[in-house]
Amino acid sequence: MKRVGVIGLGVMGAPMARNLLKAGYEVSGYNRSPAAVRRLEEDGGVGCASVAELVAGADAVVTVLPDSPDVEEVVLGPDGVLAHAAPGLLLVDCSTIRPETTRLVAARARERGVAPLDAPVSGGEKGAVEATLSIMVGGLPGDVERARRLLEAMGRTIVHVGPDGAGQTVKAANQLLVAGHLALLSEAIVLLGASGVDPTPALRVLNGGLAGSRVIELKGEAMLERQFVPGFRIDLHHKDLGIAVAAAREAGVALPMTGLVAQLMAASRARGDGDKDHAALVELVRALAGGAAAVT
Amino acid sequence: MKRVGVIGLGVMGAPMARNLLKAGYEVSGYNRSPAAVRRLEEDGGVGCASVAELVAGADAVVTVLPDSPDVEEVVLGPDGVLAHAAPGLLLVDCSTIRPETTRLVAARARERGVAPLDAPVSGGEKGAVEATLSIMVGGLPGDVERARRLLEAMGRTIVHVGPDGAGQTVKAANQLLVAGHLALLSEAIVLLGASGVDPTPALRVLNGGLAGSRVIELKGEAMLERQFVPGFRIDLHHKDLGIAVAAAREAGVALPMTGLVAQLMAASRARGDGDKDHAALVELVRALAGGAAAVT
Repeated sequence: MKRVGVIGLGVMGAPMARNLLKAGYEVSGYNRSPAAVRRLEEDGGVGCASVAELVAGADAVVTVLPDSPDVEEVVLGPDGVLAHAAPGLLLVDCSTIRPETTRLVAARARERGVAPLDAPVSGGEKGAVEATLSIMVGGLPGDVERARRLLEAMGRTIVHVGPDGAGQTVKAANQLLVAGHLALLSEAIVLLGASGVDPTPALRVLNGGLAGSRVIELKGEAMLERQFVPGFRIDLHHKDLGIAVAAAREAGVALPMTGLVAQLMAASRARGDGDKDHAALVELVRALAGGAAAVT
Repeated sequence: MKRVGVIGLGVMGAPMARNLLKAGYEVSGYNRSPAAVRRLEEDGGVGCASVAELVAGADAVVTVLPDSPDVEEVVLGPDGVLAHAAPGLLLVDCSTIRPETTRLVAARARERGVAPLDAPVSGGEKGAVEATLSIMVGGLPGDVERARRLLEAMGRTIVHVGPDGAGQTVKAANQLLVAGHLALLSEAIVLLGASGVDPTPALRVLNGGLAGSRVIELKGEAMLERQFVPGFRIDLHHKDLGIAVAAAREAGVALPMTGLVAQLMAASRARGDGDKDHAALVELVRALAGGAAAVT
């Protein structure tokens, strides 16, 4: 497997394509806006003007798209990947979408002799640039093995977590945990501040015990200093919590904490913080406490 | 400071008193049920038949009691610590109680010339036995320095977090974070299980990223294997979330996630799981999903 086509050259897709080039793959790219395609060409990739052109020359196609409807259109649409794919193509979807959509895409792909994997990533832009992403893979074991070297070119931790859609379910679990940890840390910071306790030494001692988390380590200081340059935007986390809530409905389970944090993230976005890093959830919790002035 | 009286020789207080003995202090002890006092005597401590007797011979008194009313009675009561204390006594309260109660106790102590510290601990029975507790200390800096060697005999991380009650506020923040992390992990496990995803490799990959937490590390396996030998009991965490909710009311802030997790912990207790380890919160979330049979 030498020739890889990447569809979606955004914040995540562009550096992932670059890491495939570095690993020695022949990489072609397609993107709705052509500027990203030109940058890939400058790095040694081949720009494509259509999905059809990209699929024609590829052993594997990697999609890195914003949301479920984008994947449905690009893969299942009348001029999409499956319309042009030859049997044997490997289709690796690195987008974060609904497990239900993933299972539909996988079923259609197999009808065409295409091998589908769902492979959503975590680790953000930094992980994409440094090829240190965690990649949660759903699909058939043989297909995962076929894709392993390709995935290892883009990430550090590649874990096969189950059948079609399992990668998306684990990603949904990841996003509900991260959002919940951000909301709880926001509440802890607001309680400390409003009680007259300096949160800096407090967070140090909290992180040393059973309350310790990567969110405290990586987002605590940003919350205290109110620095919200993204990183991972509230808008995207809002989208992902929609996926988590939908996955829970689909699985027939009730997740009260997930339901609440989805509403808090929606409120944060509604207040105008959608473009900020998800650590800005603390601003909503501050507002619930009477505004920033009340809690220094 | 050589002579330390310990009031409350329970699961936490007994090993803490033992570690004070090991560090070379002359330790006397008082406890409502006398069996614990006899065990302290066997270890080389001095048993006392009353608070008055204990206070008479002590340079410092350490209280390790279940709840706010216990501390009020033992310290402020007609036959309590302050009724018998000589000026200069150091009073270290290691109980987890309401910050409001702590501030009342501290004010009354100062009126009598007694130096009060709130010093709630985290790390559980294991931390108490191994003298590796984290201790969150509120009070005056000079008093904290006077107590430092004594605190270091019982714990590993001693952090002065602010004035009277600050230790309790940080402990409340600790307990809301831990409970929230337990509830979110429960929801992630139930979502994975109900979606047909094996949670064991999933938790490994989740713990490797921004969703990582000490709760996943230390409680994930117990939740999956449904092993709930305490550890820290649901009953006690329920009590502590009552403190967190009360502290939020006192500070005038709204903490929605904390409010919800307090209700979930109350439901877990109401279902009869009060004596189990707090990881048993997952059993409630399983029940919300239709019972254990629905989620393997």
